Amino acid sequence: MRIIGIDPGTGILGFGVIDVTASGAAKMVTAGVVTTPAHTPLDERLEDIFDSLTEIITETKPDVMSIEKLFFAQNVTTAMSVSHARGVAMLTGRKARLTIAEYTPLQIKQTLTGYGKADKKQVQEMVRVHLKLAAIPRPDDAADALAAAITHSMMARGSAIVGVK
Amino acid sequence: MRIIGIDPGTGILGFGVIDVTASGAAKMVTAGVVTTPAHTPLDERLEDIFDSLTEIITETKPDVMSIEKLFFAQNVTTAMSVSHARGVAMLTGRKARLTIAEYTPLQIKQTLTGYGKADKKQVQEMVRVHLKLAAIPRPDDAADALAAAITHSMMARGSAIVGVK
Repeated sequence: MRIIGIDPGTGILGFGVIDVTASGAAKMVTAGVVTTPAHTPLDERLEDIFDSLTEIITETKPDVMSIEKLFFAQNVTTAMSVSHARGVAMLTGRKARLTIAEYTPLQIKQTLTGYGKADKKQVQEMVRVHLKLAAIPRPDDAADALAAAITHSMMARGSAIVGVK
Repeated sequence: MRIIGIDPGTGILGFGVIDVTASGAAKMVTAGVVTTPAHTPLDERLEDIFDSLTEIITETKPDVMSIEKLFFAQNVTTAMSVSHARGVAMLTGRKARLTIAEYTPLQIKQTLTGYGKADKKQVQEMVRVHLKLAAIPRPDDAADALAAAITHSMMARGSAIVGVK
């Protein structure tokens, strides 16, 4: 199974593609970010995201898109901005007929580390270990996207580590 | 100039197309709503919105998309939901190479009624008068989309009534 993980954002959107074997071993295919310039009209930035993601999906041919679900308690402006990009990313996956899976930050933390209060660095270190990489992928958004992809691979196998609620 | 106004939403998205003559007279071409069923996966609903709006744009061939800008002080969940649909709507307009204009609810109220604290009914009544319609278009989302379209027609002509800030 090939999974593309997405960490949505308007200025910077992370993606990470992994292959998972029947035994559950995962390896990274590619990871990176789509960036769009600030001070560019929002509609153009959304088109950039749509076109770039469509190209990545066409090239890597994943079966599933695993996308981080937003949970914001505070900054409504950021939440709305990210949601525009997230809607477009989901549309891209749907248009390519991928299965779409959504996971909250809490689910991703718990699945990768077994601990819902793990910090960002711990999650990223688990991404590195899980994918047998020499270093944590950069930038953070790419690592976070890989974390979303790994979460789906473990959830789909029922092998998630469920931590303290 | 032909303008499509959009009142964004995931469950119900209003649209309203108007023609504006050089003298500023406006007439309604069509108006309505795109609805997507609740309890359907979000990616499918976003595709429904993209496909339906693309069809409306292909049929009516507007020059400009005038879309309501969100301003939420309170409900983050609603703001995020609407933003997913709004991002997809803007992408649709961009893909069709429309000019995209954004107006806040306050700008729309002020432009149509000259009064920033006008209620929804007053704005809708001005839509009816401005377009010389026998009745306020239904449902509300279609009337609100027409209000966004009219706002752009007046702003583009520099004829907006600027009310109390």
